[in-house]
Amino acid sequence: MSAESKLSELNLELPPAPAPMGVYKPIVIVGGMAYLSGHGPLQLDGSLMKGRVGSEVDQDAGYAAARQTGLAMLSTLKAGLGSLDRVKRVIKVLGMVNSDADFENHPAVINGCSELFAEVFGEDSGVGSRSAIGMGSLPGNISVEIEGIFEIE
Amino acid sequence: MSAESKLSELNLELPPAPAPMGVYKPIVIVGGMAYLSGHGPLQLDGSLMKGRVGSEVDQDAGYAAARQTGLAMLSTLKAGLGSLDRVKRVIKVLGMVNSDADFENHPAVINGCSELFAEVFGEDSGVGSRSAIGMGSLPGNISVEIEGIFEIE
Amino acid sequence: MSAESKLSELNLELPPAPAPMGVYKPIVIVGGMAYLSGHGPLQLDGSLMKGRVGSEVDQDAGYAAARQTGLAMLSTLKAGLGSLDRVKRVIKVLGMVNSDADFENHPAVINGCSELFAEVFGEDSGVGSRSAIGMGSLPGNISVEIEGIFEIE
Repeated sequence: MSAESKLSELNLELPPAPAPMGVYKPIVIVGGMAYLSGHGPLQLDGSLMKGRVGSEVDQDAGYAAARQTGLAMLSTLKAGLGSLDRVKRVIKVLGMVNSDADFENHPAVINGCSELFAEVFGEDSGVGSRSAIGMGSLPGNISVEIEGIFEIE
Repeated sequence: MSAESKLSELNLELPPAPAPMGVYKPIVIVGGMAYLSGHGPLQLDGSLMKGRVGSEVDQDAGYAAARQTGLAMLSTLKAGLGSLDRVKRVIKVLGMVNSDADFENHPAVINGCSELFAEVFGEDSGVGSRSAIGMGSLPGNISVEIEGIFEIE
Repeated sequence: MSAESKLSELNLELPPAPAPMGVYKPIVIVGGMAYLSGHGPLQLDGSLMKGRVGSEVDQDAGYAAARQTGLAMLSTLKAGLGSLDRVKRVIKVLGMVNSDADFENHPAVINGCSELFAEVFGEDSGVGSRSAIGMGSLPGNISVEIEGIFEIE
């Protein structure tokens, strides 16, 4: 099943493709790859999910923020490529969690994004390499920021 | 206008291409891409701009440090490629700010580097994908560290 | 001397190739490159080297953790490629140190991994571009997490 069909089947609603918050492009396409800028958990109403994971929001909220960030990345991919069906596979994801110094469950948080990609692009093509790490701070105190590299056709 | 001509026109002076602070190369060229190591805000006299953004130095100082880091990256590109005119475009920048836990304006800081690249390489080719994030600490307490990937010819 | 011969000569023992701690693949191969996920300092007995560098463990322990992380990355490369001799060179390493806000010697810590790669792959091919940075936190409080990109044949 194609990624676009899967998106419909799962009734996933994408937020509007995010506008840059600085001097950068949300997506750059070169040599059969799409490089996506760091995305935040942009919601349908245009607001961002905020709060440090561990103290200000809990791990479940972090997971939800990572999934929402994944939806924003899909929106950027669709806007940049015309169709999600042009994505051949996820190559790499850098999942950055705005978390306290004693937080230890970054992989469980970033799974929110990774499980979404597996649902939409499939268990093989949708699962790439990944790092999940804890940041000292993130722009606007968003809970999660994620960037990625995708192979496209 | 070529990047080298632009550099002259803007009277931008590049610091000496930075020597590695560990076991790495400042630049690796492979498959039409140049991968640049994390650079710091190296000044003409060889010193680095230091201090945590938010508490030890302010946001404007962070912006200046990001611009200076961009100049150091240009110096490495020029040394590695022979000429900045071999840069086709900026693909990706990872902008890391040494900042306090409550700092929220990382994109405004990293714009110091991104605006420089836009001036030198042009509004289209000079603007790539980007993540701007807050680090817990950086080597030698430098204010900013930035790495990048460039398409070259 | 080939990387596999070098590994034998140096009597280096690789830990078992690490299983994913979330929804990701340890290695993705695409377009002549191997993208490695963030690895931790996995030991022969399956345990991970933990503790924040600066306060909980010292810089030497951080160096040892970075070297052990490098061994885990070699194990993943060997499992994914069949032989380390397929590695043409190290392109890029992102070395992330779980460190206190006042820690300043990230490059010296990450050298633990970089010197290992130089020993195994050679002084030229084994040394790539690199960033060494300080994280607010890392999964399971591991001391170091490192991801990398390798050119392969």
